[in-house]
Amino acid sequence: MIGLILAGGIGSRFWPVSRRRRPKQLLDLLGGGSLLAVTARRIEPLCGPDGIWVCTTEELASAVASELPELPPSRILGEPSGRNTAPAIGWAVRSMPEEVREGVIAVFPSDHWVADEEAFREALRRGAAAAVEGAHDVVTVGIAPAWAETGYGYVELAAPPVEGGVERVERFTEKPDPETAARFKASGRHFWNAGIFLFRGRVLLDLYGRHLPELAAGLERLAAEDGDAERRCALYADLESVSIDYGLMEKLSSIGCVVADCGWNDLGSWGSLAEALPADGDGNRTVGDTVAVDARDNLLFADGGTVAAIGVEGLAVVRTGDAVLVVPRERAQDVRRIVDRLRALGRRDLL
Amino acid sequence: MIGLILAGGIGSRFWPVSRRRRPKQLLDLLGGGSLLAVTARRIEPLCGPDGIWVCTTEELASAVASELPELPPSRILGEPSGRNTAPAIGWAVRSMPEEVREGVIAVFPSDHWVADEEAFREALRRGAAAAVEGAHDVVTVGIAPAWAETGYGYVELAAPPVEGGVERVERFTEKPDPETAARFKASGRHFWNAGIFLFRGRVLLDLYGRHLPELAAGLERLAAEDGDAERRCALYADLESVSIDYGLMEKLSSIGCVVADCGWNDLGSWGSLAEALPADGDGNRTVGDTVAVDARDNLLFADGGTVAAIGVEGLAVVRTGDAVLVVPRERAQDVRRIVDRLRALGRRDLL
Repeated sequence: MIGLILAGGIGSRFWPVSRRRRPKQLLDLLGGGSLLAVTARRIEPLCGPDGIWVCTTEELASAVASELPELPPSRILGEPSGRNTAPAIGWAVRSMPEEVREGVIAVFPSDHWVADEEAFREALRRGAAAAVEGAHDVVTVGIAPAWAETGYGYVELAAPPVEGGVERVERFTEKPDPETAARFKASGRHFWNAGIFLFRGRVLLDLYGRHLPELAAGLERLAAEDGDAERRCALYADLESVSIDYGLMEKLSSIGCVVADCGWNDLGSWGSLAEALPADGDGNRTVGDTVAVDARDNLLFADGGTVAAIGVEGLAVVRTGDAVLVVPRERAQDVRRIVDRLRALGRRDLL
Repeated sequence: MIGLILAGGIGSRFWPVSRRRRPKQLLDLLGGGSLLAVTARRIEPLCGPDGIWVCTTEELASAVASELPELPPSRILGEPSGRNTAPAIGWAVRSMPEEVREGVIAVFPSDHWVADEEAFREALRRGAAAAVEGAHDVVTVGIAPAWAETGYGYVELAAPPVEGGVERVERFTEKPDPETAARFKASGRHFWNAGIFLFRGRVLLDLYGRHLPELAAGLERLAAEDGDAERRCALYADLESVSIDYGLMEKLSSIGCVVADCGWNDLGSWGSLAEALPADGDGNRTVGDTVAVDARDNLLFADGGTVAAIGVEGLAVVRTGDAVLVVPRERAQDVRRIVDRLRALGRRDLL
């Protein structure tokens, strides 16, 4: 199995720790190394050291290379500009040698937390086997909802369930409202969409040709062009900016799903990071040097320096070298609005 | 009038900005200079440049001297160790030359905010005149309560009121509970005790002799000792540690009070600092580089770096070089508990 790690984003909801040149996937948010390095280590038993590829931006390629020193530069693919997941995945797959594309490729975001890594890999092995057999065009990974999360997309599986095998996805659903999320959690047939896809590379490019013909043609033009960086850059910028979920997955009639019972979290915000950290007796989760007095259920994150809290509840308090953020944990999604405000204020020093 | 500024404390409720060697009175919390320098400027029109004395600790004397470069070192009195207000004031007065002690001395804490400085000085002039006349042993300053504060002591004035003159204090009361504070605010006869006292120096020492005879004797022993620093240090450490309110004021039968209508705040905590700062349209009060999105009634204080808040209400968020504090504004008194915890943890780096 080939593992393709997507590492091109910024993760602006992790401001102030994440920045343009120090994006989320390069941060050590949970201890044990950067999220990217942890992701690579997690999949290496599946892919082997020679089976890992990373798709990032040209700007971040050297930082990725330092983070994964054993990865040869030829397997770090730097997008000329950040587009969206459909062009990025298509371009990365098209950039691989033809014999690699013949095999099964698994696409992984670089910002996931997994509690039971062996259970996670076991599900992927089942998924890869199904992708080889060709019973489904694409196989996704579903996670049994641990709570009624409104920030994730879900997959609804077709009845009846398939014991220990590969299920069929009935439909994808977008982020639900709280009532729908509660119904999904109770249904037993709705699973968090982990954003992980398995497919044969050749099959994926065929699917692009059928469902995203313009994007597929753009990828072929890019593949034919070699040498002129400016021209490549222009061609890349012309690719349709669409997510693989909307652009492709929702159009496919045969999508498989392997259910992984592994403890999973997409680390999408300070709120979900908190869920992945162990709580102390007062429900506080802490990273770095922190002091809490009469404070409950907070995330206290000190990237250097000390964070002290007294008498507060349910907050995320994040300190980094030059900035502090305070936000209720349940509103951690809104941190983007701070980043938007800083951008509007021209505060590139903080971005 | 002689102005004696008390500048020996630490102000631990202003942690993390206040520290052992950088106490509250040396901080520029409101802009316009350190609280000590602002206090000296405020009283200079009353006392003249030659009439200002400062009582601090030996440890802080050089920092005080840098803060008030025009003050000759002989008028900076450094306590061998920090005791309490009764020994500090008594010792400072006893240390002044006899001809200075003949006149009226006004004692000022170094951490007050005053909105209308001329109204403040006008009240003090009335108080000084009363102290000269000798109608009262000591004259205090009362402030009409702007809100039902539970963190201040109050003076209750005797009926009937004296128009524009010097009232008589019926009794001092300690910090009231919320109901009592509301009653005090409504009564028209209860005023915040500003902790400012006016007296003739000679009279004060007589009162010490009568009501605090042991302390008075200790002060005389200290005055007789000159030269041996170790001996002075030991004598000073032996002085009774009692506040001037409990040790003296509550025992006196004739205390005057001048009411000052000047806008006043004792800057005792981040909560009261917030009250002294102008609010923006969302009720936020800010110092330094701050960003607030959908946040109301917070104090955002950035002593360097940036403080960003989203979706929070009624908090004090304070950032300094090495530490961040988050506390509800209404619980700002409890910041001491963080300092106590740090002391218990042996974190002198943060004290």
